[in-house]
Amino acid sequence: MRVYGDEQSGNCYKIKLLASLLDIPHEWVSIDILAGDTRTEAFLALNPAGQIPLLELDDGRLLAESNAILNYLADGSAYLPTDAFARAKILQWQFFEQYSHEPYIAVARFINKYLDLPDGRKDEYAAKQQGGHKALRVMERQLAETPYLCGPDMTLADISLYAYTHVAHEGGFELSEYPAVGRWLRRIADLPAYVGMA
Amino acid sequence: MRVYGDEQSGNCYKIKLLASLLDIPHEWVSIDILAGDTRTEAFLALNPAGQIPLLELDDGRLLAESNAILNYLADGSAYLPTDAFARAKILQWQFFEQYSHEPYIAVARFINKYLDLPDGRKDEYAAKQQGGHKALRVMERQLAETPYLCGPDMTLADISLYAYTHVAHEGGFELSEYPAVGRWLRRIADLPAYVGMA
Repeated sequence: MRVYGDEQSGNCYKIKLLASLLDIPHEWVSIDILAGDTRTEAFLALNPAGQIPLLELDDGRLLAESNAILNYLADGSAYLPTDAFARAKILQWQFFEQYSHEPYIAVARFINKYLDLPDGRKDEYAAKQQGGHKALRVMERQLAETPYLCGPDMTLADISLYAYTHVAHEGGFELSEYPAVGRWLRRIADLPAYVGMA
Repeated sequence: MRVYGDEQSGNCYKIKLLASLLDIPHEWVSIDILAGDTRTEAFLALNPAGQIPLLELDDGRLLAESNAILNYLADGSAYLPTDAFARAKILQWQFFEQYSHEPYIAVARFINKYLDLPDGRKDEYAAKQQGGHKALRVMERQLAETPYLCGPDMTLADISLYAYTHVAHEGGFELSEYPAVGRWLRRIADLPAYVGMA
């Protein structure tokens, strides 16, 4: 199987981390978003939404959206239980990540780290801080009660939220305000098969 | 089971529509977002993210995020196949909905229909049009090839995308530009157990 991705993207890194934890062999095809690789006709034929990561199976079937890819690849593993409510609870956190976390923390990081915080986007950057802290408070509240987002065991929910949370400082978020989040980040980084971002 | 929701919200309507199609008995607890019902201490104790819909099971367990709730309620039904790739493909569309569709089409509808397009938000409204049309083009491309988003059969993906697409005109989107989307909307509205928005 083939993964089209950019190692600087947290959404793509989710796949890289899961593949390492589950030892899933795959070919990594480097895509450079800033260079326009996701806007070429060839790439849009693979994913009309023009986004990475994108998974291509050996039989040619294609799957987009980082969290959908995680759910496919983790099926049958300990990170994705079979119980319907447990699976839905993981999805709750994954949708929270895409709607209430990524659009603030990942976008603030992008504006700051890759665009070097231009004057024209300073208001937007400031507005992102508020939403990002709100998301971090929701995580802190849960992680003060349970070691992982869905309880005593690590699941896909943790992989999804780890991706941009562990680089949130690059978007201006001071994580020392969130001690339970900090302990959770270290717990994941200490896993034997852990792999870091590029 | 109990559903906390606002009948004007497409995210809440997804649950109402699925519950009607699958004949799932439930109690509907009306929550008025504009009146601040999701910001009360009592509600935030149920869902710290302060969002609806929220599902409360008879044993007290809570589940947030519309698409996670759909996946839980549809488990075992024809709208959610058991094959891992088929399930992931549904998730692909549901994450597309929350990241690339709802933030444009639902937010444009909110600014226009509920806030009456105030001067201070006209730029934002205009910017939302571009993203919304991009999402509609992605849907049109798929629905020109298959009757439903994941192929020949209706799945949860269609329920998720139907919710805000069928009221997209309230956000200024002219759907006649998307004939395959229009046929798909009619196909869903013609289902015997279909129920409309409030």
